[in-house]
Amino acid sequence: MKGKVYLVGAGPGDPDLLTVKALRLLRAADAVLYDDLVAPEIFSLIASNAQLHNVGKRCGKKKIEQEQINFLMVGLADSGLNVVRLKSGDPMIFGRAGEEIEALRQADIPYEIVPGISSALGAAASIEIPLTHRRISSAVVFITAHHASGSDAINWAKLAGSGGTLVIYMPGPNYAEIAGKLRKAGLTDDVPCALVSKATTSQQRVHLTTVGRLKGAPQLPAPTLLVVGEVVRMAHADSIGQFATSLTDGQSLSSIFIEDAPSSFRAEEPVA
Amino acid sequence: MKGKVYLVGAGPGDPDLLTVKALRLLRAADAVLYDDLVAPEIFSLIASNAQLHNVGKRCGKKKIEQEQINFLMVGLADSGLNVVRLKSGDPMIFGRAGEEIEALRQADIPYEIVPGISSALGAAASIEIPLTHRRISSAVVFITAHHASGSDAINWAKLAGSGGTLVIYMPGPNYAEIAGKLRKAGLTDDVPCALVSKATTSQQRVHLTTVGRLKGAPQLPAPTLLVVGEVVRMAHADSIGQFATSLTDGQSLSSIFIEDAPSSFRAEEPVA
Repeated sequence: MKGKVYLVGAGPGDPDLLTVKALRLLRAADAVLYDDLVAPEIFSLIASNAQLHNVGKRCGKKKIEQEQINFLMVGLADSGLNVVRLKSGDPMIFGRAGEEIEALRQADIPYEIVPGISSALGAAASIEIPLTHRRISSAVVFITAHHASGSDAINWAKLAGSGGTLVIYMPGPNYAEIAGKLRKAGLTDDVPCALVSKATTSQQRVHLTTVGRLKGAPQLPAPTLLVVGEVVRMAHADSIGQFATSLTDGQSLSSIFIEDAPSSFRAEEPVA
Repeated sequence: MKGKVYLVGAGPGDPDLLTVKALRLLRAADAVLYDDLVAPEIFSLIASNAQLHNVGKRCGKKKIEQEQINFLMVGLADSGLNVVRLKSGDPMIFGRAGEEIEALRQADIPYEIVPGISSALGAAASIEIPLTHRRISSAVVFITAHHASGSDAINWAKLAGSGGTLVIYMPGPNYAEIAGKLRKAGLTDDVPCALVSKATTSQQRVHLTTVGRLKGAPQLPAPTLLVVGEVVRMAHADSIGQFATSLTDGQSLSSIFIEDAPSSFRAEEPVA
């Protein structure tokens, strides 16, 4: 008898943000195929006798081709194992679930998709930025920087210039290029931005800046997200401060967003 | 001593899609303030001795003003109770969390935000539509129909015409108006759409259609979502079929998206 494949969202990192269903499936899985970006805290929840397969394809360096992942996933299920294909965040948002679903359908393997907290939602909760706000922004866009180059069917400038909150997944190291594209889409230098690294984990780091100063932002460890828009002004000093020592007592968070704020301010510095 | 307020995402409906943290908080809460849109299945998980307050503001009919909700929430926490403010989906996406956070900060009440599976993610998993897809769409937009009227700072036409997948929360009853705005943004009549009602619950209903035929779509019970974009073609007959009797054996799902498909086809009809 064939096993079943569960395409499961692992959420942003904090194991407490797994869904009840994801936790139950991880505990019962015969085999787990996971990405590099899945937070290590999650692994202790997997049944100790389960097969573990790292099928990560991090930062464009394809260690394993998608076709190989599909082949392994189908093969394990075909041999009768219940397989969890664990993806960071949500499988349906920048998770390549579409391609894996096609492979599973083609191979006639039973499967089910279990949503997860997408990283943007985890980051927003953690640093207290509402992604939509009745008075500030009534739309939110999830996009990747990768497709900013223009060869894609997506009109990046339309999305960036829509006035909605923008969440850029996998912004990559070239912040100057992103800032240039944001300006080209009509955003002014004073629009606030938040870089969030390893959202919701104990290693979370946050850097608040503006479009004008984005190019000088530090490179934070992946996975990172860049949130752009007026809602970023709502970020809370205490929630950032848990991960930053340099926010001095009484310093207003809004001072970060003033172009001439002291450059020594670095919200991203880790707790000593 | 003051209690604490937890702004908690209840997810799309299925109690299995609560996060581990949300479930723990619901079981331990002294008081729960909830919206009409929170699925009834969730309530059995709340501690039996907890105060329950319905503070729903459904479909624009404001039974309770936001200020009253804030007042109640702050008052309960001030009296020492641990309060869960339970919101359907995710608190930071169309959840008015921004306004409640401001009230809590002003009243100096300790609080924490716990993300949830936003309805779009639940619906996407349930009917097997990847919201992004490497070959089809590298962006997804969450927007409300409410702001389609143009008085808002959001440029709805830019978002709708970007080529990214569009998820319209709370589309309301006027599908003809939405279809008009989608066309005006440059979408052609053959762009596929999925209306999803009560996603992930036992009452989930789905209607697949196109921009051209959207105006004739049935009114499904709230909460509903409208997904617009080429990714909708990936919706799976079996996953829709669980909730529809009229998908005849061997009928191709893609036939729905052909303008002259038989009008008798109704994927939204409930299981007999």
